[in-house]
Formats: sequence, structure tokens, C-alpha cells
Amino acid sequence: MEKIVSPKNERIKSWSKLKTKKNRDKMNLYILENWHLIKEAINYKQNVKTILFTEKQYDLHFKEINNIEKYEIIIISDEVSLKLGSTTTPQGAFAIVQLPHIDNDFTKDTVSGKWLLLDNVQDPGNIGTMIRTADAAGMEGVVFGEGTSDIFNAKVLRSMQGSNFHVKIMKYDLNDWVDSCINFGIPVYGSELNPQAIDYNTVKPINDFSLIMGNEGNGMQQSLLEKTTDNLYIPIKGHAESLNVAIAAGILMFSLCK
Amino acid sequence: MEKIVSPKNERIKSWSKLKTKKNRDKMNLYILENWHLIKEAINYKQNVKTILFTEKQYDLHFKEINNIEKYEIIIISDEVSLKLGSTTTPQGAFAIVQLPHIDNDFTKDTVSGKWLLLDNVQDPGNIGTMIRTADAAGMEGVVFGEGTSDIFNAKVLRSMQGSNFHVKIMKYDLNDWVDSCINFGIPVYGSELNPQAIDYNTVKPINDFSLIMGNEGNGMQQSLLEKTTDNLYIPIKGHAESLNVAIAAGILMFSLCK
Repeated sequence: MEKIVSPKNERIKSWSKLKTKKNRDKMNLYILENWHLIKEAINYKQNVKTILFTEKQYDLHFKEINNIEKYEIIIISDEVSLKLGSTTTPQGAFAIVQLPHIDNDFTKDTVSGKWLLLDNVQDPGNIGTMIRTADAAGMEGVVFGEGTSDIFNAKVLRSMQGSNFHVKIMKYDLNDWVDSCINFGIPVYGSELNPQAIDYNTVKPINDFSLIMGNEGNGMQQSLLEKTTDNLYIPIKGHAESLNVAIAAGILMFSLCK
Repeated sequence: MEKIVSPKNERIKSWSKLKTKKNRDKMNLYILENWHLIKEAINYKQNVKTILFTEKQYDLHFKEINNIEKYEIIIISDEVSLKLGSTTTPQGAFAIVQLPHIDNDFTKDTVSGKWLLLDNVQDPGNIGTMIRTADAAGMEGVVFGEGTSDIFNAKVLRSMQGSNFHVKIMKYDLNDWVDSCINFGIPVYGSELNPQAIDYNTVKPINDFSLIMGNEGNGMQQSLLEKTTDNLYIPIKGHAESLNVAIAAGILMFSLCK
């Protein structure tokens, strides 16, 4: 088993560059942190290439890996762990994983089921939490529109808690997606902070729909708001001006998926 | 108008210590960051002592302050702003505010209305978001139990978006609070990740109740779980193991406050 102690090792330097989207795309890889998520990636048959452990983490977890011979296992020092980690106190378990192939074919099947669409959502914690919630609500998947932060960002991966392996993740032009839904007769719900919109409590749960959540500060883009079947509003009773976008998404998804 | 350019100024050094709970309690003050929140504090008649602005922020906002002579206004340099701020790019507007007096009398009136109880919740972002959501849902207030992070932490203040000025904030031993509710015939709902608990959808909205949310990793303490009227469960359909605590709180509060 290989052992790497120096953070200046060429492979470590190369993997530590996976913190940016540009390098992830160039190398067609991403880095996954924490044993809980690595185990989920293995269980859900992601293309895990290399697993890196500090000695302590290796001792704790190597027995949980089925067919361990399939993976390159590397023991690393705490210094290397710090170099690869996204926090100041990394757990000491990392995996180098191939980016999943994203299918771009588009049929009625593609847009069937319950979908969450992210329009320019910026905060990685919000994005990750929405994907975890979409999973719990029983949604089919999540579509990343243009301008929404990258799914393989360390903080997004952390907040998703592995839910990205349970639901489908797509990248699409949301205008195209919405056009297709409307074409196929599938309702699309926008969300807006506007009492003129429809109270979400009046919408009955259905099998196929897309729900769009917009940017934290500016909401959904106007062109999408105009295309939707209906725009939903969560009535606010107190003096808060708005809800956090992930909270709003949670309330809407659990109401529409009942 | 006083001007302070050096971060080594004694008053600035003293105020920058308000980042810890220990010093906030000792000085009976806290520091509020960003104009939006300072304006809310003024509007909701908090005891604002001093407002500090960079020149740019002063020019943008001084006209919005009614009775400006009531406050000590200080112009600060960018260096001082960085010293006081809790992020790497502070906006440049701060207020030094007296800690609010917390009343400890306890009658039926105290526990009437809709209350959110936080049992050992740790993440400042989660706490702030739950208070913002409690405000939006029309709750009476939020009770901080022992072990829950301090409300005057910079990240909690940021996530609350001023909702702490709109709803009542209490600090109490949750066991005492729950005992009083039960005594007065007011239902207390716990929350747990346990399909043996009651599906939240089956509970009808009512006027008076307390809802308890527990620690991110370990849930509610056992002694409280045993005292509640009912413990609520949010059915999870996908493969997610749990919901983020703030998302769960949002779904439960909006369902109970309909």
C-alpha cells in the first residue's frame, strides 16, 4: 500500500487542485471528503478511483470496504490530509472520484416525476441542503440551471450528505427544461415573494411537476416566472421579509409531495 | 463627530472583544453588523449606544437615522472595520447595543402562544434560520435551552436577518418550560427521527403549543422526549437518513401554524 507523507508530492498537489470547478472539469475528477460520504459513493456505485486515509481513519474503516482490491488505497500523513481538506480540521478520509456522465437526451421520460430546478442559487450550503431535502421528500431529481454553484464544490458535497447519489442530478438550460414540461403537459411551479401569486396550500400534490427556486437575493429570473404554469407563494405572518431559500424549498416540496 | 482610524484604539480593541459570549456578558453589550440589521434594531427600539460607519457607509445611510443625536456616531477606517467585522469583507456598518433584559417571571401568559424550543442546537446558521422562520410562520417566540449556542453570536445574528427583534427570545431550562406547559394544559410537541412517533400531518393547527427541536447529531434529550404531549415525525420517502434541523423546523412550524 502506498504511503504519502509530503504535501508537496506531485499527485497530492494535483488532487488539491480539484477544489476549483475549472480543474475538476479539466481532470474529469472530484474529491470527496469524510468516510460517511465515501461509503455512500461506493454503495451507490460511483466511479471511485483512489481512497486516501490517515492511518487512524484506515484502521477505523478499511473493513467496511467490499472488494477493497478494486480501489487504489493510499495512507497519508496529517499534513497531506490538511492539504486536501476543505476545513481546518479534516477527518482524514478522501476519495478521488470520476465526474459522473450527464446525459443530455431529452424526452418526456426525462422531465417526468417530481423535479427541483435551481435558478442561479448561489450559497453552497443552501444548494446542498435543498438536494438533501429533495431526496427526503421523494423527488426524482434536481436540475442545476446556469449560474447555480457547482455540485462538486466541497461545501455543497458536505451539505448534501450523500443525497446526490440517491436522486438524479442534471445540468440544463432551465428555459429549455420548462418549455419541454409545458409541451408535455407537466405543470411547472415557480416560487416568488408575491402575495399576488398562488398560496402553496391551495395546490394539491401530483405525480409529475417541476418546482423552481430562485436566487437568494433576486429570486427567479423574469423569463422563467412568465413561463410557469403557476407561481407559488408562502404566506408570511410575522415581520420577516422572506424565508431562507432552502427553508422555502423544504416547505414547498413536502407540501407538493404529500 | 469622532473618527477612529487605528484598530489599536482602546475602544475598538474593547468592542472587538464582543465576539465572545464571555465578554458580551461581562460588558452587557453586543455588536451588530450590517446596516440592514442596525436599522431593524433602531426601528424595534433596541438600546443602540454607538453606531460606527466607514465614510462610504455613513454617506449611504445617515439620512435614514431618525433622531441621530440620540446615538454616538463614529467614523471608522477600513482597517477598524476589518478588526470589528466577523467576515473577511465587512460591509462597514456596526452598532454597539446593550444586551436586552430577559424576564424570568413565569405565568400561564409566558408560555401561551406558539413557541419554538431549541434543545442543544449547535450550528449558528441553523439557529438563526430557525428564528427567521419562526418569525415568518407567526410564532410568538423562541426559547433557548441550556447548551444551545448564544443568540448574540455574529453568525446567528446574520442568519436571523433581524427576526430576533420581531419575536420574543427567552432563555430557560426547557424541563421547567415543558412542565409549565403541561401544567397549564398546553400541548408540547417533540420532534424525532422515529416512525413510531406521530406523523406531523395528522396534527391540526392550534393556537397554543411548544415545539422542541433537538441537537443536529443526537436529537432531543431523552428527559424531554418523555415529557412531551406527542412526538412528531416527518415521513422520509427517499434515501436521505434525516433532514437538516432547520428544514425540519420550517416544515413543522408552517404545518402547525396554518
